[in-house]
Amino acid sequence: MSWQTGEPHFRPAAWERLAGARVTVVGLGLMGASLAGGLRERCRTVVGVARRAETAEIALARGLVDEATTDLASGVSRSDIVILATPVRVILAQLAEIGALLPDGCLLLDLGSTKAQIVAAMADLPPHVQPLGGHPMCGKELSGIEAADPAIYHGATFILSPLPRTSEAAFTLGSALVRAVGANPLVIEASRQDYLVATVSHLPYMLACALVSAADATTSADPLVWKIVAGGYRDTSRVSGSDVTMMTDILLTNQEKVIKAMEVCIAQMRDLSRLLESGDEEALRARLSAIREMRKEMFP
Amino acid sequence: MSWQTGEPHFRPAAWERLAGARVTVVGLGLMGASLAGGLRERCRTVVGVARRAETAEIALARGLVDEATTDLASGVSRSDIVILATPVRVILAQLAEIGALLPDGCLLLDLGSTKAQIVAAMADLPPHVQPLGGHPMCGKELSGIEAADPAIYHGATFILSPLPRTSEAAFTLGSALVRAVGANPLVIEASRQDYLVATVSHLPYMLACALVSAADATTSADPLVWKIVAGGYRDTSRVSGSDVTMMTDILLTNQEKVIKAMEVCIAQMRDLSRLLESGDEEALRARLSAIREMRKEMFP
Repeated sequence: MSWQTGEPHFRPAAWERLAGARVTVVGLGLMGASLAGGLRERCRTVVGVARRAETAEIALARGLVDEATTDLASGVSRSDIVILATPVRVILAQLAEIGALLPDGCLLLDLGSTKAQIVAAMADLPPHVQPLGGHPMCGKELSGIEAADPAIYHGATFILSPLPRTSEAAFTLGSALVRAVGANPLVIEASRQDYLVATVSHLPYMLACALVSAADATTSADPLVWKIVAGGYRDTSRVSGSDVTMMTDILLTNQEKVIKAMEVCIAQMRDLSRLLESGDEEALRARLSAIREMRKEMFP
Repeated sequence: MSWQTGEPHFRPAAWERLAGARVTVVGLGLMGASLAGGLRERCRTVVGVARRAETAEIALARGLVDEATTDLASGVSRSDIVILATPVRVILAQLAEIGALLPDGCLLLDLGSTKAQIVAAMADLPPHVQPLGGHPMCGKELSGIEAADPAIYHGATFILSPLPRTSEAAFTLGSALVRAVGANPLVIEASRQDYLVATVSHLPYMLACALVSAADATTSADPLVWKIVAGGYRDTSRVSGSDVTMMTDILLTNQEKVIKAMEVCIAQMRDLSRLLESGDEEALRARLSAIREMRKEMFP
């Protein structure tokens, strides 16, 4: 079917299905472990699949899951819902193999930050699987299960990119799961979401990286520099501390759109630099005021 | 005399002088009003000079000053310490006129974010004045007396740029004042501080502005974009909300160094963009990891 962009309707009936569901989260890093913890009170059973036995043990010890394993096949074998919470290119690899392991009618959701390649791979899943692309717009610069906290999902927008083949029942179940962890589902088509996040999420990361590099190149030789770093630098550079494996995957699966967003931003910087060089005070002030107003509109 | 770069020694004797001092803060915006409020418990009298009568009344009503006036001459006439807390180019204009109004031996400190032009102008003050360049590395994106809060100075680095003509007694009094509001004095020569803040303070502002402009140019036509804005964009763009008059003055009085810092940053962005375009995963990962480590070293 064709899906309507925007916030899906709330379907109370899906809550019951969710409450009775066995849910498996594959990948117990920050995002997966936090989601598992948030789902535990809402679902019959939450299973965690980790690559390392140590992570599985931590998940159990912290009460984030009911069961934990390092074996993908047994972890997903009897599940009603399976969530792939690994880096984007691991998700792509898993999608090529996981179909045969999943029970009939299983909802397969992912948490990958880029959606076009994932949704394309989901289209090739065997017909007994119900695929649903997902992207929760939350996180923090810390990574790993040690940083897990179900509260990161509270109030966050959670993008859903259903496929034409996704059944309404599966989609409704996925929306209920999103609401169950306190997030707000929002339906966006995969390539449109990739375009938007290239600017509002991947570009800020690249800018933060460029800022840290620039500071390293120009001022790091001065031992006083870190004494005078104020909040502006700290905030603007914060996301450069994001998990590198996650970001490498995101950038390489959204390459073209991120490069385009960077070009637009470089052009804006050149423009601002020329304006400053001109010394035209009124024009500079007008431009900075307009930008300040834009941001105020974004975050009233 | 020639001044040693770094943290000045603590001189207990200066506390007594500070406690007995009449201090005038000229300019009751965020920085000036917050400083006045922080000094009130520590000095005999704190006087505020505002451009508008309404601001003077708010300062009195909020208990940030003991006395308030809109008249510069009477406000500074019997003061031991005068602090210019106006935008940088207003400070430059005030420095050309204020000398004749100041009592003999008066310490004249400023809070301007760029120091080279201010310190050069201070060198031309009449000899009975004791000038001291200052730059507190704190603030918030709100401006005006409504946002005043003495706590913004707590733990902040407060750069001091003394002149060869500044007496040791005047410098010591200025350092005591900085410590009295909970900040940490740090002596840096004016043009070195301008070079450093171009990168760690003014560049982040320009990057934030370029990001907001880029987002406006590419994605603002999509009504969904602001629903999916996550913390990365919010943090990276935050300082674009800074006071425009203050920033215009800062940029125009540190023009050359800011343009240079922007060029370095644009080169870093081009580099990152090329690396992404090459698709060389190992090189990309290595670069992003190195940047992540750099930032970790900056903010352990």
